[in-house]
Amino acid sequence: MAVGLLAEVNYHPVAGFQLGTTEAGIKTAGRKDLVVMQAQVGSSVAGVFTTNAFCAAPVKLCKRHLQDDKPLAFIINTGNANAGTGALGDADAVTCCNQLGKALNLNSSQVLPFSTGVIGEKLPVEKILASLPQAIAKLNIDGWQDAAWGILTTDTRTKGASIQIDHCGQTITLTGISKGSGMIRPNMATRITVDGDMSTNDSCMLIATGASDLCLDEDSELISKFSKALTDLMQALAHAIVRDGEGATKFISVEVQGGANSEECLQVAYAIAHSPLIKTAMFASDPNWGRILSAVGYSGVPNLDVNVLTIHLGNCLLVDQGGCAASYTEAAGQRVMDQEEITIRVDLKRGDIKQTVWTTDLSYDYVKINADYRS
Amino acid sequence: MAVGLLAEVNYHPVAGFQLGTTEAGIKTAGRKDLVVMQAQVGSSVAGVFTTNAFCAAPVKLCKRHLQDDKPLAFIINTGNANAGTGALGDADAVTCCNQLGKALNLNSSQVLPFSTGVIGEKLPVEKILASLPQAIAKLNIDGWQDAAWGILTTDTRTKGASIQIDHCGQTITLTGISKGSGMIRPNMATRITVDGDMSTNDSCMLIATGASDLCLDEDSELISKFSKALTDLMQALAHAIVRDGEGATKFISVEVQGGANSEECLQVAYAIAHSPLIKTAMFASDPNWGRILSAVGYSGVPNLDVNVLTIHLGNCLLVDQGGCAASYTEAAGQRVMDQEEITIRVDLKRGDIKQTVWTTDLSYDYVKINADYRS
Repeated sequence: MAVGLLAEVNYHPVAGFQLGTTEAGIKTAGRKDLVVMQAQVGSSVAGVFTTNAFCAAPVKLCKRHLQDDKPLAFIINTGNANAGTGALGDADAVTCCNQLGKALNLNSSQVLPFSTGVIGEKLPVEKILASLPQAIAKLNIDGWQDAAWGILTTDTRTKGASIQIDHCGQTITLTGISKGSGMIRPNMATRITVDGDMSTNDSCMLIATGASDLCLDEDSELISKFSKALTDLMQALAHAIVRDGEGATKFISVEVQGGANSEECLQVAYAIAHSPLIKTAMFASDPNWGRILSAVGYSGVPNLDVNVLTIHLGNCLLVDQGGCAASYTEAAGQRVMDQEEITIRVDLKRGDIKQTVWTTDLSYDYVKINADYRS
Repeated sequence: MAVGLLAEVNYHPVAGFQLGTTEAGIKTAGRKDLVVMQAQVGSSVAGVFTTNAFCAAPVKLCKRHLQDDKPLAFIINTGNANAGTGALGDADAVTCCNQLGKALNLNSSQVLPFSTGVIGEKLPVEKILASLPQAIAKLNIDGWQDAAWGILTTDTRTKGASIQIDHCGQTITLTGISKGSGMIRPNMATRITVDGDMSTNDSCMLIATGASDLCLDEDSELISKFSKALTDLMQALAHAIVRDGEGATKFISVEVQGGANSEECLQVAYAIAHSPLIKTAMFASDPNWGRILSAVGYSGVPNLDVNVLTIHLGNCLLVDQGGCAASYTEAAGQRVMDQEEITIRVDLKRGDIKQTVWTTDLSYDYVKINADYRS
């Protein structure tokens, strides 16, 4: 299950960018699990990656290729993370790049590899190579929806967003897909967490094909429009991951404001977002605010003044003057908790910095998914 | 449920120390929920407390009384934490101390109050005061087992330990009880965690009645014997909390050795101990070692060399040279995981410091206990 209705995404194709998806038999039979993507010559590619020290072989290779060359092609498999696979895994990632490079007349270092799935099992390179021609044959500017399916793991739905902005009679298209459901705490830009487990494989890529004639450098109005559109797109892709977080029945925004710095805001926000006691109370729709107060208290922020800070659940003031607010009623708290989307807001009242972390509740299904399935 | 058989504890009474337990009707009817304890004149009392900034009213008062006076009496209730209760909660804790002090002919500041249970509800002072005479009437040196019952919350069993050491023809008795099941990450001395949620009420008290004629100061052999006995006792009390952790079906020791300092050992140990993915895999007895590798990788230790560190599951070498050890077999990993007590051992190979954290798995029952019950 996932939180909220699945919004139909109208994927606007991006000129100069094609996607091809096929079934390589890595995951269960009949499941799309291999995707290739190709950007036209002259495209710019940037990426951010997991900071997990045990980062996967493809992550290491992506970083090297981005440094050494101008990548234009992507090979993505699900069903296997190629992480914790040592030197053999490194070689397997290289083999995938070599093969796709050859087929597309690119250097091997112009190919970026991505893998997702079980950690610690050998990448089934033969299956991938055998199916690569089919994926290449399907390369198409309308390949977004299929690719969105092809990259999923324990996800229950595809995740995508597509935005168009008009400027001086031209249309700029931003289209993206994301995936992820468990082992989610990427710590890259948007602050999302499902379980606090940072993946070995987190990768976020931004590709500009340059197909429009517009140039950001020279146009502050366009920069502003574009920045907003890109932020909205990335946030939508990030939120979609949380909404489909493993076992999620609630979408929780933890907003911490009034901080002296970002670090302390995030300390408080993550303490709340990772507390199993709060997450299970959210699952039960139980306004057990004592657990929130406790998490704020143990977050580790130095010299926290518990008598001045406030905690809101939705629009209800829960905590002030070191205890339960006089105006708070259980009924009001219950009304907030009964909703699918819940905001917890902490005001530290010691500065003007704000940070937000988005997370899920912790349900029986979370345990079921991760106890029953080798993910 | 809890991990392991319940060992019968033979509580050796401690000369000069009495305990009295009764039912004050704070928790469910018929449940022991109020305990008083009294140490003889001349006893020494020391304590460590939670570092949660939202620490409970009784914790604040304990610290003050320990600083201002020489406490000799204790009043403990379950069913209500008297935390997040603001100024009213502070006054309620004082009232309890006043009353017990009066009854025992002690200053109010010679009484230490302790509360455990739901956060944020008013302490039912009237019920406590009304039942105090009954608890006092039961003060007895053989009151340990009843007191062990009287302090429980969501615990499924009592927790106690009792050790006697002989020295120069004299017997020294160390007897203790502990409680706790959820909201367990005290961070006081022994490194235990159930859910990573540090309580608002953690308190650990050590009382010496001085009833033996032996003096630690002058006898290095006795110091050594006594230190060992006290450490064993405290560790047994701490382990008992983990074994009865909410929903626990496994007792997991996370040993991190070869660290350059304690901090980095604990970073790695807590990353493993708090990972919901590892904890659910433990519940499923699934040797999903990729999740352990990932947690070590994201623990935040700077310049971690993933190619030299090793990870063992029980006596199985799981990870070396950045990936799965050549000698590892799934069958061998499964044999370890099928046990109730599991050790995960990480050797960082960059120093000689070692730290151990004890924790539980994450089961359906954990979710059930915390979603169904306002604890």
